[in-house]
Amino acid sequence: MNKIGKLDGKIIDKLKGIVGGTHVITDQEYMEDYSHDEFSLSDISRMPEAVVKPASVQEVAKVVKMANLEKFPLTPRGGATGLCGGCIPSAGGIVLSLERMNNIIEIDKHNQMAVVEAGVTLMNFYEAVENEGLFFPPHPGEESAFMGGVIATNAGGARAVKYGVIRNYVRGLEVVLPSGKIIHPGGKLMKSSTGYNLMNLFIGSEGTLGIITRAVIQLMPEPRESRSLIIPYDSLEEAIETVPILMSSKIIPLAVEFIPKDVIQITERFLNKKWPSTDGSTYLLIILDADSREEMDRLSETVADICLNKGALDVFVADSPQKQEQVLEIRSKIYEAIKSITLEILDIVVPRAEIALHVKKVQEVAAKYDIWLPTFGHAADGNVHTHIMKVKLVEGRLIPFPEKEWVGKMDRVREELYQDCKIRKGMISGEHGIGIVKKPYLSLVLDDAEIQLMKGIKRVFDPNNILNPGKIFDLKS
Amino acid sequence: MNKIGKLDGKIIDKLKGIVGGTHVITDQEYMEDYSHDEFSLSDISRMPEAVVKPASVQEVAKVVKMANLEKFPLTPRGGATGLCGGCIPSAGGIVLSLERMNNIIEIDKHNQMAVVEAGVTLMNFYEAVENEGLFFPPHPGEESAFMGGVIATNAGGARAVKYGVIRNYVRGLEVVLPSGKIIHPGGKLMKSSTGYNLMNLFIGSEGTLGIITRAVIQLMPEPRESRSLIIPYDSLEEAIETVPILMSSKIIPLAVEFIPKDVIQITERFLNKKWPSTDGSTYLLIILDADSREEMDRLSETVADICLNKGALDVFVADSPQKQEQVLEIRSKIYEAIKSITLEILDIVVPRAEIALHVKKVQEVAAKYDIWLPTFGHAADGNVHTHIMKVKLVEGRLIPFPEKEWVGKMDRVREELYQDCKIRKGMISGEHGIGIVKKPYLSLVLDDAEIQLMKGIKRVFDPNNILNPGKIFDLKS
Repeated sequence: MNKIGKLDGKIIDKLKGIVGGTHVITDQEYMEDYSHDEFSLSDISRMPEAVVKPASVQEVAKVVKMANLEKFPLTPRGGATGLCGGCIPSAGGIVLSLERMNNIIEIDKHNQMAVVEAGVTLMNFYEAVENEGLFFPPHPGEESAFMGGVIATNAGGARAVKYGVIRNYVRGLEVVLPSGKIIHPGGKLMKSSTGYNLMNLFIGSEGTLGIITRAVIQLMPEPRESRSLIIPYDSLEEAIETVPILMSSKIIPLAVEFIPKDVIQITERFLNKKWPSTDGSTYLLIILDADSREEMDRLSETVADICLNKGALDVFVADSPQKQEQVLEIRSKIYEAIKSITLEILDIVVPRAEIALHVKKVQEVAAKYDIWLPTFGHAADGNVHTHIMKVKLVEGRLIPFPEKEWVGKMDRVREELYQDCKIRKGMISGEHGIGIVKKPYLSLVLDDAEIQLMKGIKRVFDPNNILNPGKIFDLKS
Repeated sequence: MNKIGKLDGKIIDKLKGIVGGTHVITDQEYMEDYSHDEFSLSDISRMPEAVVKPASVQEVAKVVKMANLEKFPLTPRGGATGLCGGCIPSAGGIVLSLERMNNIIEIDKHNQMAVVEAGVTLMNFYEAVENEGLFFPPHPGEESAFMGGVIATNAGGARAVKYGVIRNYVRGLEVVLPSGKIIHPGGKLMKSSTGYNLMNLFIGSEGTLGIITRAVIQLMPEPRESRSLIIPYDSLEEAIETVPILMSSKIIPLAVEFIPKDVIQITERFLNKKWPSTDGSTYLLIILDADSREEMDRLSETVADICLNKGALDVFVADSPQKQEQVLEIRSKIYEAIKSITLEILDIVVPRAEIALHVKKVQEVAAKYDIWLPTFGHAADGNVHTHIMKVKLVEGRLIPFPEKEWVGKMDRVREELYQDCKIRKGMISGEHGIGIVKKPYLSLVLDDAEIQLMKGIKRVFDPNNILNPGKIFDLKS
């Protein structure tokens, strides 16, 4: 049995003995920040009994070993930019924050790999990598995310089309097991067929199998040329239907995003910045990379031709770093701009060829329940972020609608869209993870036999169920 | 307890009932082919008690379920092109051959994915994919390998530098569990963060966790241009030291192979074909791809400049499909040409920056034990195939040396090279797998805690230890 709410003074003292008195927090006001993640609703927040901030893998190992011996829950926490409650200490116990383990140990140019601690932010990582003339392709969005969390959720982001998700870039891990043992699956290796791939099991396991304290990350040479195209369409269908044509034209873009104009306009006002186009109702944002200016010109022309043939109204080009940054800032801040009026962000992933049909279903459901469901996301990898909103959009104006109306609708909308996801052989999370929020729907898309195997794995790795208990699935059921 | 050697007539009859009488083989002469793999020594071969050839996943499920109930060992078998004994029925019982499940179910151009049964050969797969104008980047060598086996070992091959190993291309699996349940981890999906990644656990698990019966494989648009450069050097050091310089020049080749001239010459004689150069002592074979002729010219010139600056004697270009095919045929048939005089093929993978030092160690060990250790492989991904030979090469002539001499030396040579692998933080298999042959060395490169987790996983997936028992590790120890 887990000792919920039973962290007595003796345990707190021992924790202080391990990480130092100032790095064990029990002050309620201070701990409030550690009771929730970036987005999830207040009804799943929970105060930890203590927040513990180790500075080294040895300290992590001692804390975890103690949690395992004393059988209290331990929830690892990165940048807390998650959207599904993964870092919330739902079962009580301690939050283990990796924030002090924020060293970039090495950018190894010879092997084109970086070694980072779990608490390094994406922002600092990009900067360090770029300073060495190298490139880390994935861009999962919020740059205050920690590398440990990004790995624990197998984050994706817009730039996954050409270069893949985080999983493709992790080459090695340092992981603390509940026993306090420290293991190092993988390494600075491009390939390995040496036993079961434990590394890929930790990636995406949301802190339930071990604490990731360090990672070896594959880097790439920086592309010589990069360009963003902003392409307005009158209809969402035409925009999305362009994507498979594009993908079969022998061009692999870095990113292909579709975004409705209304959310762009809200974000323009929020940031007081200008999007390059006011045409149409939907935009495709296509990011290309190439090894030479000539190659980039050829690619851009081909992409423009394909889009214009498929009904695009125009093609705007952002080629200078400044122009590109402005476009990408608007894209990446949509989340912040509409956060306060958003109830839930879905993260459905379907086969690429199904995305137009799924988005059509979203529109039908929006009409059926008279609810605003702005939908955008990663068109070329099938990952669609439908936002369930607590306001309506009427002629460009946001009209709040009463809680008693949306509470009931939210569940039915989610249910209908998850059913459509299932029909299209999709999954309920493309990149955010399951956490608490999506847990009730796991059995909708996974066979019971698969979930039983996952539970069996959890029991092997964490026999006392101390690591982030109650996330992804409930062990008891 | 496994019923070794206890497959009585009743069980054979039941198996015949499942797959049909003609697809259960018990004839000794016929079964001899199923007692060994492509390479491994006769001392590890073992006759199966029966060979069973199901035609569908339902038949596989019935056979596996029966093995689990009756507790007899079942060893899945693909194209048997493995080099480590992975498909040998070492514990007795039946060999489950996937040879009749050889259908390419679908090449889905819209999603750029293929769906194949486990018994499809690489050769047939490449052909089907190319016929649709698409591209499957990995090339693990022997094209009679089955897709199921290629996935079960996470095969790599020369073309892994730019596009990665098999793991990067598997998007979904159909797997039969020992219970007879059929699961479908993954799908036609570009990304997923929906629970633990079981798919990646099956990839590389060498048939010990489940029987892979079908796979969804990601494809790519075919590159417009492809070119092979053959670059002779006077010294192996210079050849290998070129690689990191090349990789930091913003060029990512499809493949970078290093090959000693002596094995090229043996293969030329074996095939009666001509390699484009007779200069130097070592060759780099660099394969490039690009989206346009201009881009390819630019890439080739840069690569040639870098190599010539680093001491290359010349740069030969194979740009027509015919010339490229001839070069690649010689490269891929080296194995066949020297097979009869090879004792063991190592598959060490080290960080790319360590490859020159590891190859130097190979040369020292060769001198120390007065044994010929031709070494070649995938320079840019750190995967080195050192061949332990039972002949010496003296002034271009192969001189056999007596078995009593090489038997003892082989163990010491292997041991010294694995120790060097460990020092360089490498792994003992980059792409071949562990099977039986490398099992004694697993604990050299993996922590005991890691091996214990692997055994725990095995027990969860296969509680009766019926699936390919005794491979990778011994469960008892």
